[in-house]
Amino acid sequence: MAKKSVALVLSGCGVYDGTEVHEASAIMVHLSRAGAEVTIFAPDVEMMHVVNHCEGKPVADKRNVMQESARIARGDVTDLAKLDVSAFDALIIPGGFGVAKNLSDWATKGKEYSITPQIDKVIKGFHQAKKPIGLCCISPVLAAKAIPGCELTVGHDKVCKMWPYAQVAQSMAELGCKHVNKHVGEVHVDTKNKLVTTSAFMCNAPIHEIFDGLELMVADVLKLA
Amino acid sequence: MAKKSVALVLSGCGVYDGTEVHEASAIMVHLSRAGAEVTIFAPDVEMMHVVNHCEGKPVADKRNVMQESARIARGDVTDLAKLDVSAFDALIIPGGFGVAKNLSDWATKGKEYSITPQIDKVIKGFHQAKKPIGLCCISPVLAAKAIPGCELTVGHDKVCKMWPYAQVAQSMAELGCKHVNKHVGEVHVDTKNKLVTTSAFMCNAPIHEIFDGLELMVADVLKLA
Repeated sequence: MAKKSVALVLSGCGVYDGTEVHEASAIMVHLSRAGAEVTIFAPDVEMMHVVNHCEGKPVADKRNVMQESARIARGDVTDLAKLDVSAFDALIIPGGFGVAKNLSDWATKGKEYSITPQIDKVIKGFHQAKKPIGLCCISPVLAAKAIPGCELTVGHDKVCKMWPYAQVAQSMAELGCKHVNKHVGEVHVDTKNKLVTTSAFMCNAPIHEIFDGLELMVADVLKLA
Repeated sequence: MAKKSVALVLSGCGVYDGTEVHEASAIMVHLSRAGAEVTIFAPDVEMMHVVNHCEGKPVADKRNVMQESARIARGDVTDLAKLDVSAFDALIIPGGFGVAKNLSDWATKGKEYSITPQIDKVIKGFHQAKKPIGLCCISPVLAAKAIPGCELTVGHDKVCKMWPYAQVAQSMAELGCKHVNKHVGEVHVDTKNKLVTTSAFMCNAPIHEIFDGLELMVADVLKLA
């Protein structure tokens, strides 16, 4: 069987203003073990803002999304503007606030959000080509906008200690998606749309459970590719 | 059995000027699965320099090691100056150029290097208390200075495509350590010094092989704790 070719889109480096590094790393480990070829992309744009991750507060600094994503990519990152859907079998986008700040304005606008034209084009491109898309944590909000009415999970829809961001699930339903409650170790597969989602760090779970949930997500994406 | 308590010391966020994020993440996944309690530390000092990871070149920017490490720690990082050896069963320090730039001056001085008084005190503290220490990639150079004559591996000692940094192994031997050639999926255990080392990204290997080597390193550290 030919190697599957996967485009991985990052949005910075660090949970509060970029890609969640452990989600990205887990996805890369699982793709590597499965023998997939991975090409990493990120937008060559300024970050919405830079957060001091010790204090959780924005600081007066400017950084570039692609350059910071290169910290996860070990230097090997390509401008998202150059992503050619025809060259890939699947798309995966890890979570982190970078999705809500640099790929969309979910972080500031909530349900009134929009996603960047660049990521909208990429997601619609994979969707229209009937190629699978894997999303986790907060990144399913991108699909909610680009693929109206899709099925997805961002975990559970009742806020509690384990699911501090559960109101996102409620918003997904209000936006016309079918939100499916899933535990951190589970995925939801929207077979019609070839969309695979899992909650990852939307759940306040030990990091190895998040790692294992992402293993299922990667496996299901590759199965559909 | 009581949970093992592990101090994890980071040196920034990103392979070229900080902690190698995938090594740190893999170690955290393995420690989590083993049920260990992890406390993350980093020095509250300015980074030696900031590298644009797309170009591999330094840029005119100033960043703090602890704040950048917090990107991997998801905010939960403690000043290395506050590390109390008596509170922990083991010490682990992932690699990345941050070890050679922010915890030592190996990157600029090579064999004439010194390590920071803070990390010297921490390593000697664990060593004198007969508590195990796990190191990988370039971080064994810290032990070579703090624990003279120790046994360690940084991979292989002949430079080739798979081992681009093999001259570090030669330097370790010249500094009086016993360097033991090991493949990426292996560790070396110096039982006398309770020192567990593995090559990780010193080897040009697929990321899942690095992940698996670190699993052995973590397991051996916890066995000795």
